[in-house]
Amino acid sequence: MDILINENESIDDLQYKGLKIIQKNDGFKFGVDAVILSHFLDVKKNDHIIDLGTGTGIIPILIAGKTEARMITGLEIQQDMAEMAARSVKLNELDERVKIVCGDIKNSVEYFGGSKFNSVVTNPPYMSSGRGLVNPSDTKSIARHEILCGLEDVIRSAAKLLVTGGQMAMVHRPQRLVDILVLMRQYKIEPKFLRFVHPSPYKRANLVLIKGFRGGNPELKMIEPLYIYDEHGNYSKEINDIYNREEK
Amino acid sequence: MDILINENESIDDLQYKGLKIIQKNDGFKFGVDAVILSHFLDVKKNDHIIDLGTGTGIIPILIAGKTEARMITGLEIQQDMAEMAARSVKLNELDERVKIVCGDIKNSVEYFGGSKFNSVVTNPPYMSSGRGLVNPSDTKSIARHEILCGLEDVIRSAAKLLVTGGQMAMVHRPQRLVDILVLMRQYKIEPKFLRFVHPSPYKRANLVLIKGFRGGNPELKMIEPLYIYDEHGNYSKEINDIYNREEK
Repeated sequence: MDILINENESIDDLQYKGLKIIQKNDGFKFGVDAVILSHFLDVKKNDHIIDLGTGTGIIPILIAGKTEARMITGLEIQQDMAEMAARSVKLNELDERVKIVCGDIKNSVEYFGGSKFNSVVTNPPYMSSGRGLVNPSDTKSIARHEILCGLEDVIRSAAKLLVTGGQMAMVHRPQRLVDILVLMRQYKIEPKFLRFVHPSPYKRANLVLIKGFRGGNPELKMIEPLYIYDEHGNYSKEINDIYNREEK
Repeated sequence: MDILINENESIDDLQYKGLKIIQKNDGFKFGVDAVILSHFLDVKKNDHIIDLGTGTGIIPILIAGKTEARMITGLEIQQDMAEMAARSVKLNELDERVKIVCGDIKNSVEYFGGSKFNSVVTNPPYMSSGRGLVNPSDTKSIARHEILCGLEDVIRSAAKLLVTGGQMAMVHRPQRLVDILVLMRQYKIEPKFLRFVHPSPYKRANLVLIKGFRGGNPELKMIEPLYIYDEHGNYSKEINDIYNREEK
């Protein structure tokens, strides 16, 4: 196959079913959040899924590798990132099940139509625009800060894109949890499952996974906490399972 | 001292600074939730505090024993409970710092006036009215179900009773977390601290402690999880500390 790798990019092995990803050496790299979010989403055979703000395309590629979803669309506003993500899709020969679209989340219904997806997944920028911001035109800043897209834009779009009963799954910092839950209820994606991610059992949570359903009834269910490390400082059993590191 | 104990009541020793509480033998007994909530509230010297739905009066009595609050008011709608709580206050010789008032949370501003308290604390009924309900006129049912008072009544009243910047602290089941956070924001008590209580480190949370401030800015902070038991099945160090069981 003839996949062009640009200068300042490298191919990283996902160590899972031979999947690979192209990333910029000095750019935003996918983290544990993208991996656990892909694992958190419930996927049924033939589902149509969209990842809002796909970046490198890590989430669609992982979901395509792990599940029998029919089609996973990755929407990315930054042209160079979208183009790089599309090359990663090609590299993994996933063209038939993963589609990368360059465009703005705020216009997503114009691109795809309403009520078109079984699931929306998103790992949005964590920081409000203007907070700890160095360079607003920088690719990395756009992935990390709400410069081009706020939390409300993401949730409003998700509500329009989802079929009734469809699922929205998100990972975010707990600092924004009140905003997330208030907006999800406002846009009628009822938050149904909450899972906190802690560095280890006695540490405070630094990530939260939220799953809501369009038109669902109020009643939140807690999921057992996810610990990255166990009490002995080793990766937890669950993290090893998620990363498919069974032998250790 | 001459405190009347009714038939079907007993005096339980709180094993903390000699404090005691009168409880009905077949009625609603205070649990770990009341104890950890009393510990969760930040109390400054000379604070004025109100406990909405005080039941046996356990929370005002514990706060009076633990802190230098000036006055803790316990509001209770059930006359026999309020009367029993008042006897517990006398029994502990806390009459000068704890006042039990029999009345309806919904009318609390009429009783006390607006913006009168530094803190509102509440351990409200956990179950929505009609859910798993056996006998709606039963004392125990009223303490457990939202028969006489819903979550919105509690939060609306708290917002009126609190001074600007005043604190609301609540314990509840996580199932209601979305409702709680949405209502607190709606009534301008911004949720600022969240702490989940788990039976043990790998179990899902079954209680949540929430602290909000009237007129606060949005940004939630997570607190380390509170485990009742540790990974070996013993009471956790923190629970022993809260119960002041230092020797074990």
